[in-house]
Amino acid sequence: MINAIEAPTTSLVVGIDVGGTKTALVVTDGADRLLDERVVATQRGHLAEQVVAMLRTAVEQAEVGGAHVDAIGIALPGQVDSESGKVRLAVNLGAPELPLASLVEREIGRPCFVEHDARAAAIWLYQHKSDPSTNGRSLAYLSVGTGISAGIVVDGRPLYGSGGLAGEVGHVVADPDGPLCVCGMRGCLEAVAAGPAIARQATDAIAEGRQTSLKANATAADVFRAGTEGDELALEITGRVAGHLARAIRALVLTVGVKRIVIGGGVAAAGDALLEPIHGRIAGERAASPLVEAAFDGATVELLSPQWEAGARGAAAIARQRIGVTQREGVGDR
Amino acid sequence: MINAIEAPTTSLVVGIDVGGTKTALVVTDGADRLLDERVVATQRGHLAEQVVAMLRTAVEQAEVGGAHVDAIGIALPGQVDSESGKVRLAVNLGAPELPLASLVEREIGRPCFVEHDARAAAIWLYQHKSDPSTNGRSLAYLSVGTGISAGIVVDGRPLYGSGGLAGEVGHVVADPDGPLCVCGMRGCLEAVAAGPAIARQATDAIAEGRQTSLKANATAADVFRAGTEGDELALEITGRVAGHLARAIRALVLTVGVKRIVIGGGVAAAGDALLEPIHGRIAGERAASPLVEAAFDGATVELLSPQWEAGARGAAAIARQRIGVTQREGVGDR
Repeated sequence: MINAIEAPTTSLVVGIDVGGTKTALVVTDGADRLLDERVVATQRGHLAEQVVAMLRTAVEQAEVGGAHVDAIGIALPGQVDSESGKVRLAVNLGAPELPLASLVEREIGRPCFVEHDARAAAIWLYQHKSDPSTNGRSLAYLSVGTGISAGIVVDGRPLYGSGGLAGEVGHVVADPDGPLCVCGMRGCLEAVAAGPAIARQATDAIAEGRQTSLKANATAADVFRAGTEGDELALEITGRVAGHLARAIRALVLTVGVKRIVIGGGVAAAGDALLEPIHGRIAGERAASPLVEAAFDGATVELLSPQWEAGARGAAAIARQRIGVTQREGVGDR
Repeated sequence: MINAIEAPTTSLVVGIDVGGTKTALVVTDGADRLLDERVVATQRGHLAEQVVAMLRTAVEQAEVGGAHVDAIGIALPGQVDSESGKVRLAVNLGAPELPLASLVEREIGRPCFVEHDARAAAIWLYQHKSDPSTNGRSLAYLSVGTGISAGIVVDGRPLYGSGGLAGEVGHVVADPDGPLCVCGMRGCLEAVAAGPAIARQATDAIAEGRQTSLKANATAADVFRAGTEGDELALEITGRVAGHLARAIRALVLTVGVKRIVIGGGVAAAGDALLEPIHGRIAGERAASPLVEAAFDGATVELLSPQWEAGARGAAAIARQRIGVTQREGVGDR
């Protein structure tokens, strides 16, 4: 502790956010300042190997100048038990069950903590990028990428729920007659509004002979781009997706009473092409219903700033809090 | 305080739960024991007059033997600001806005606290009728009556949310193409699965010439009763309602991570005719999806015991906590 006070920048943490498509790593100092950042493609099915290799390199490089990496935080999707460090049901990572924290501790030799990716992002955004006097004491981070899930802070506290499963809104039913979801259910939000679902709607329509500028291998990003260029099929798909996401946001606002919703994940890279139709839907509902108006009064729905690797930053911030916790003899912040 | 220790039963609180159909009042002592209870029909549009009259009578009668009513708790639907004591948007009570707590304090001369009805019930059930070792540290009370809303306790704490609006799940979209809701929106859960919606589905089908044993003025209770007698239309309606409620329960479980769901409100009087089809739907989803299975693992979905006036009991328990808070100079439990 004396060392940390004398030279705060030498006490580092590494945060890593493993997504279905990309993996981001950050190195931060004791003041949560960003010292290093890198983003690579996720190697699906090789979760543990990739994470360990990236962390080994990052720790070695970070410590070259005499600094020390005190802890590692890992953010990832699925059922993440932040107490035991185990990860389950990360359906989009091909990783059924993994004692990830203990594996990393053994390989890298530093304390390691895991957290659900969206929860990690929400905690970081709430602690570092929110002003309770304007944003209230709540925030939901809605991650829309390969999958969909939410991190929720309400009444100033992150929601965990039994088994850490709070925030799995991607598997709430959006369309009872919708397509099968990777989870095994039908019509989940994820099955109609995540990146792969957006791409598949384009592919299916093309196979049915719909006229469009889109190619059969179009990605979600291609669909949003074509929409801004006036492609009718693309606008139909993005409008439908915006409707589903607007309803999911309304469900979050009404169920947990959040006033700030931040949308991130790969699909959020579409920018205004995603955000504007969502804003439009919500404005329409507010005009129609005094209750929806009261629920959204003072609320903001915004996109995550592309500069912020919120999941990895959150993982780093949580790891720092947890080693503080360990030093205080296990008195947790949960 | 010395007085309370010497004779704990002389320190009473009165709790009252104002619903869209009925109003329940309880008198409890310092050990949360039930001393008196009464239930009357709600006089819609005369909320304040009825509440004040009932409370005046209850306080007078309770104090006949030398006991003293120390505080009053009121549970009711709508947007209830438990800090200011104001009530808004109680769409099913015909009460747009009301400073209810200060009005009752002036009329009755005792400290008065208001709380959202479903939240009051959830807090009481969690504090007095749950065992964290078996039920976990979470609970959702889903009130299905004239309206639909939830009270949520998660990670051991009741959810309030900004403006106290957490739990307004009755206005989450259940069917985008569904009927208009009293709130102004289309297809809200309340518009397809609350008591009046169940009755209306029967009335509409009869108007369309459907064969049924039901009369045109059938209530929700009549529909469930006819279903148990094998009426096809009734079974169709109750099956649809159970599907909507099962999806709402799954949304609650996945969004906030609760493991115990208690269904109350007028519609819950249908008993097994309501609960069994809900259990059936959830069992089917658990079998189809490992994620839903994990979310519901160890979870229970049950009906509120008809003996428990949970809303009124919760209002009383909260009033007792709040006067304790006042005596401790405003250190709250929120």
